[in-house]
Amino acid sequence: MSKGTEDLDNLIALMAKLPGLGPRSAQRAVLHLIKKRSLLLIPLAEAMHRVGSTARDCLNCGNICTQDICDICQSEKRRNGQVCIVEDVADLWAMERSQVFKGRYHVLGGTLSALDAVGPDELRIPKLLDRIVSEEITEVILALGATIDGQTTAHYIADQLPGVTVTSLAQGVPVGGELDYLDDGTITAALNARKAL
Amino acid sequence: MSKGTEDLDNLIALMAKLPGLGPRSAQRAVLHLIKKRSLLLIPLAEAMHRVGSTARDCLNCGNICTQDICDICQSEKRRNGQVCIVEDVADLWAMERSQVFKGRYHVLGGTLSALDAVGPDELRIPKLLDRIVSEEITEVILALGATIDGQTTAHYIADQLPGVTVTSLAQGVPVGGELDYLDDGTITAALNARKAL
Repeated sequence: MSKGTEDLDNLIALMAKLPGLGPRSAQRAVLHLIKKRSLLLIPLAEAMHRVGSTARDCLNCGNICTQDICDICQSEKRRNGQVCIVEDVADLWAMERSQVFKGRYHVLGGTLSALDAVGPDELRIPKLLDRIVSEEITEVILALGATIDGQTTAHYIADQLPGVTVTSLAQGVPVGGELDYLDDGTITAALNARKAL
Repeated sequence: MSKGTEDLDNLIALMAKLPGLGPRSAQRAVLHLIKKRSLLLIPLAEAMHRVGSTARDCLNCGNICTQDICDICQSEKRRNGQVCIVEDVADLWAMERSQVFKGRYHVLGGTLSALDAVGPDELRIPKLLDRIVSEEITEVILALGATIDGQTTAHYIADQLPGVTVTSLAQGVPVGGELDYLDDGTITAALNARKAL
C-alpha cells in the first residue's frame, strides 16, 4: 500500500515475523488490534515495551526473568541439590507446565554441535560446573532433546560430573499416544525399557 | 508463574488474545520476541504504539488510515464514479490484494441485521447516499458476503439507489476449486449462471 498507511504496513510486516503468523493472519491480527485499541493494542504495546526493557537472563541458571536472579533460583520452596538441565527456556517452561519437578534448573542455551562450532564454552556448561560445587548438587537430570546433538551434549555433561548421580528423562510411548503413529525409534526405546506390571 | 515474571506472563496473556495464537503459541512467540529484542520486540512495540495513536477511520469511506481522508479516497489515479461496497476493512484489503478494482470503496462497518438490531443508521449507509450525489457515482458494486444478512443489506442498498447501476460480485466455482469440495448452493449458483464458451 502507499504512504498514508506506512505505519499500518510496517506493523503488519513485523507481526508477520512472529512464529505462527503469516502475512494474511498478521493482517487479521492487526485489524483485530485496531478494533480493540484500548483493550488490547495499547496494553500489548506497553507490555512489549516493558518486557523489552526488563527481560534478561538469570545470572545463575539462564532462565528469562526481570531480576538478576530468577524466581526459581531464589525460591525457598524448591528442592536444593537437584538440578534439571534443559536446552532452552521454552523447555524449562514445558517442564514447569507439568508442575512435577520441584528442584532447580540450568538452561544451557543450546546443544554442543560440531557442525555449528558450538563448544562447551559457548553454552552455560562452565557455570553448571561451578553450581555443582557451590550449590552442593547431588543429582543432575538431563532433559535434553532425543537428537544427536542433544544426546552428545548429555554424554559430555555426564562425563564432566563424576560423583554426581546423572539421570535422563525416560524414553517411551507418550501418554495418550497411539502406537500406530509412533516412529520406529520410539517403539524400539519403549520396548527396550519395558516394565513389569 | 510468580511475581518476578509478572511482565512476561502479562505479555503472554495479551499475545494469546490475538486471532491465530493460543496460550502455547503465545509463549513461543514471546520467547522469539525476547531473542530478537532489538530486531523485532522493540520495533513491534513502537509500531503498535504509533498505530494505536494514529489509526482512525477515513471520514469519507470508513477505511482504516492515519489521516482524515484515506489514500484511496484522495488518489487521483483511481476511477471516479464507481464505488465498491464492502462489509469491513478486511474485505477492502482482500479486494485490494487482487489489484483489479480501480474505483473507490465504501466500508459499511457491518451488515443490516434484524436479530442484532443493526439498522441503516448503525452502518455507513447515510454517508453512502451522500457520496452517491456529491461524487456523482454512476456504478455501485456490492461486494458483500453471500450470507442472509449480506444479501439483505445488498437488496436494501439497491432499493435506495434508483438511477444508479448496481451490480454484485459473481457467484460460482472458485478459481482452482474442485467441484467435489463445493457446497450445493455454490454449485447451484454456478450452474444457473453458466456461460457459453
